[in-house]
Amino acid sequence: MATKLIDRTPSAYEYPLLIKHILHTPLRCSPGQQIVYRDIKRYDYMTLYKRIGQLANALRDLGVKAGDTVGVMDYDSHRYLECFFAVPMMGAVLHTVNWRLSPEQLAYTVNHAEDDVILVHADFAPLVERFRGAAKTVKKFVVLTDSGPVPETSLEVSGEYEALVEKSSSEYDFPDFDENSTATVFYTTGTTGAPKGVYFSHRQLVLHTLALAASRSLESGHGVLMYSKDVYMPLTPMFHVHAWGIPYVATMLGVKQVYPGRYIPEVIFGLVEKEGVTFSHCVPTILHMLLTSPASTAVDLSRWKVIIGGSALSKGLCTAARQKGIDVFAGYGLSETCPVLTIAYLKSDMTAWDEQEQVEIRCRTGLPVPLVDLKIVDAQGRDVAHDGASVGEVVVRCPWLTQGYLKESERAEALWEGGWLHTADVGWIDGNGYLQVTDRIKDVIKTGGEWISSLQIEDILTRHEAVSEAAVIGVPDEIWGERPYALVTIKEKFAGKVSEQELRTFFKGFVDRGVISKWAAPDRVIVADSIPKTSVGKVDKKEIRKAVTGKQ
Amino acid sequence: MATKLIDRTPSAYEYPLLIKHILHTPLRCSPGQQIVYRDIKRYDYMTLYKRIGQLANALRDLGVKAGDTVGVMDYDSHRYLECFFAVPMMGAVLHTVNWRLSPEQLAYTVNHAEDDVILVHADFAPLVERFRGAAKTVKKFVVLTDSGPVPETSLEVSGEYEALVEKSSSEYDFPDFDENSTATVFYTTGTTGAPKGVYFSHRQLVLHTLALAASRSLESGHGVLMYSKDVYMPLTPMFHVHAWGIPYVATMLGVKQVYPGRYIPEVIFGLVEKEGVTFSHCVPTILHMLLTSPASTAVDLSRWKVIIGGSALSKGLCTAARQKGIDVFAGYGLSETCPVLTIAYLKSDMTAWDEQEQVEIRCRTGLPVPLVDLKIVDAQGRDVAHDGASVGEVVVRCPWLTQGYLKESERAEALWEGGWLHTADVGWIDGNGYLQVTDRIKDVIKTGGEWISSLQIEDILTRHEAVSEAAVIGVPDEIWGERPYALVTIKEKFAGKVSEQELRTFFKGFVDRGVISKWAAPDRVIVADSIPKTSVGKVDKKEIRKAVTGKQ
Repeated sequence: MATKLIDRTPSAYEYPLLIKHILHTPLRCSPGQQIVYRDIKRYDYMTLYKRIGQLANALRDLGVKAGDTVGVMDYDSHRYLECFFAVPMMGAVLHTVNWRLSPEQLAYTVNHAEDDVILVHADFAPLVERFRGAAKTVKKFVVLTDSGPVPETSLEVSGEYEALVEKSSSEYDFPDFDENSTATVFYTTGTTGAPKGVYFSHRQLVLHTLALAASRSLESGHGVLMYSKDVYMPLTPMFHVHAWGIPYVATMLGVKQVYPGRYIPEVIFGLVEKEGVTFSHCVPTILHMLLTSPASTAVDLSRWKVIIGGSALSKGLCTAARQKGIDVFAGYGLSETCPVLTIAYLKSDMTAWDEQEQVEIRCRTGLPVPLVDLKIVDAQGRDVAHDGASVGEVVVRCPWLTQGYLKESERAEALWEGGWLHTADVGWIDGNGYLQVTDRIKDVIKTGGEWISSLQIEDILTRHEAVSEAAVIGVPDEIWGERPYALVTIKEKFAGKVSEQELRTFFKGFVDRGVISKWAAPDRVIVADSIPKTSVGKVDKKEIRKAVTGKQ
Repeated sequence: MATKLIDRTPSAYEYPLLIKHILHTPLRCSPGQQIVYRDIKRYDYMTLYKRIGQLANALRDLGVKAGDTVGVMDYDSHRYLECFFAVPMMGAVLHTVNWRLSPEQLAYTVNHAEDDVILVHADFAPLVERFRGAAKTVKKFVVLTDSGPVPETSLEVSGEYEALVEKSSSEYDFPDFDENSTATVFYTTGTTGAPKGVYFSHRQLVLHTLALAASRSLESGHGVLMYSKDVYMPLTPMFHVHAWGIPYVATMLGVKQVYPGRYIPEVIFGLVEKEGVTFSHCVPTILHMLLTSPASTAVDLSRWKVIIGGSALSKGLCTAARQKGIDVFAGYGLSETCPVLTIAYLKSDMTAWDEQEQVEIRCRTGLPVPLVDLKIVDAQGRDVAHDGASVGEVVVRCPWLTQGYLKESERAEALWEGGWLHTADVGWIDGNGYLQVTDRIKDVIKTGGEWISSLQIEDILTRHEAVSEAAVIGVPDEIWGERPYALVTIKEKFAGKVSEQELRTFFKGFVDRGVISKWAAPDRVIVADSIPKTSVGKVDKKEIRKAVTGKQ
């Protein structure tokens, strides 16, 4: 294409999309806005900026330079927020280490990302000691504590975070560099093989931030995402896909931010009340934990907007949250996608719908945020109709998708086969444009020549008043190819009072009413004490399959 | 800086920021939303997309290819919106021709931009005929009419717009290309020399669109910019800095759009009522014209948000608009800046302020939108304090600034001296971060060793109940260097009833109360029938100076 490229006069500033530029607006417009860490720390945006400079100087004094990698292992804190900015703004790479991984996996990821320095909360020092010997590239450690002295540890500790920050100058001339520089790296654990490293550039994170802030403008009256009066508190760990990138959005918009540390229901609800939190995001497991916590009964949650992601939002959980007054809706994305792709906001005319119809929409996977080019395709890559029934794999293009897996060219090429990022999720798109992911490709149950959604089966089971959670898998079957098996947990007050037969009869009611195909009725509905979860709180279907069949 | 650039696996899609990508969200989320052109045309977003394809095919059939330049001379219409997308999406350059220029200036700009094809409304055909001979690069014309046959013209007309669009296929595979490709070009007429061409790339326009949509999230409760329920109608000509780029924002957000054609108060108010317009933008002159039109008395304007730019929003005009219930506030930018840099939205706590205090904020130049790095500097380029009093030149960096003047390397370097775009505007920044532009550098009146703001003098004069508009200039003075002279127009009902002496006494009251320095009292306050305006409706101080002093 012989287009006419723009001329740039020599003195013109070619503005690169760098994370530091996110700070211009809040520092001018909201310098006095608050950032809160539990009941431990409270400061304003001007102080945040000063501390970003101090942290950068402290890291430079430890030898960190552009291109180096800094690992962080902390709860959700103001310190983590400071790292979100200071590390990439220096030109270094922030490795958000998932401290829920095993020591073996941790050693693998820290080696693979080539961490030079690790900032580690004192609580995780014993964990790090277990793989210290295997972590060849790490030269220094900084210990993070909420108070008091650095605990005894065999790690080579260069100092305590707060002490290092306090003694450093806040003057740091954050340089310009290529917007395609790596800003962050972290690992996603799939069902097979070693953890995969995904990475995001400054440009990608800035564009993700802008598009999310812009998607606020798509809302319908009761406020998706944030605006200036909101108070933000993440409930997705900051190591998990940058807490969905929302701390960057919150900072750009200059809203009040609250960081909860370790997730304890009483602390979380205390912060919601005391700090007036109005916007959070979490996986269904966390929302479920919160709603079933005794602490939830005493707190007013009617001003709280919560986006649910990571796994599907079931109608049962959505309804339970709505009954507490929570403005809950689904969002969607993957570690590979920075993550946000879609948000299940209600369109203007839907705010007049009755509650049950609204719940349907709130539980959809959502509508794409600006710039997201998302479609569903069949096995041959052909577009699938948007009829609310035909399913296909969700493939996507947008400016914030990992451009590969770190040092894994083969898996990277498979991810990007044909120039589209393959989510490995299967779903349909309805006439209103809403995507509904029904399953992971590998979790689709192929039975009697039909594709059955394991999520739809789970959804129906959770509508039974006694069922707390449900997980469905496909088990190999000689005649049908596969057959669905379900694992459910029962609410405490119904413990021991519900039989497998009762649940199968309940399910058959939906078959009889034509809600779902008869092929979908699970062969078994096993009542269990708990449902296996992965390190990030997702249902671990691999483990369930193992438990049910004895095979992987 | 040895940063670590991200790896891109060969199959990964490197998403360029192209205008075509703005369309993904609205086509998925709001395909049925309406676009209206007066009472002449009404269609939905799906049709817009089809027509963009048809227009591209029609232009290709006329020989337009990537890198070519297409001039457009039309009123604000659905056709112009189609051109905003189709022309750059083909890889061609959209030249938004200012039909208010003289034939000589028009010939200059069309030659300078090297237009290949011009799309010209029938009303402007006689104007084009006058410079056709001088426009060497133009090969073909397309005539735009609202109805009926193409009028007689000596221009080489290849067809009528609607006929060409209708007969073309809607299938057009808009290609990918470098995001730094020129998308638009247009001309700004300064006080001296030939018109200067500014130009914007796809990347710049996409980032401007995202940042404006994101700035909605900064608002304070009554809604700056747009969200899904808004109805948008531009009242800044589409040739004028892409109607401030707002049609791109409106399209990305999928809101209803209304195009008013030629600006006629009765038509405009009719559309506001019939179509439910809630958001517009215009220069003070247009708002003044509308508020003083007899048609304004019958219409309910209490749901209308209007951003004022191009010139300062005076407190008098702001108050008049507020009395009609209009949610009016200032915005700021230049042709060189795409244009938006700041918006004078109210911060959360200010919505509780009394009306007079709010008017102060609404008339400020504003707070920067996301990514805008804006400061005020003295003659040596040093930062000036943000104390609401110290003035300096406004200089800026952001991702959507023209990177030069087309084929004018010397003027381009002057614009970008020291790596900052020089606005040639002078102003102060207050403790809340609001910028207030007080003058153009050349309009600052230097008298008795002080810098006096001509805008502040104008503002005081317009507070007199009889004064309709005021313009103040500096006139050379042997003793004081310069002295202020004012030109005012009087409201109809006060015609002949107000003397120069009365206005000077009124002004002296402000001096006595310490509102303004005694040096600022104008030596003359001349009552005139009208105030000279430039082709885009701004006060033409050059002409006033000529009238008052007989010199340029």
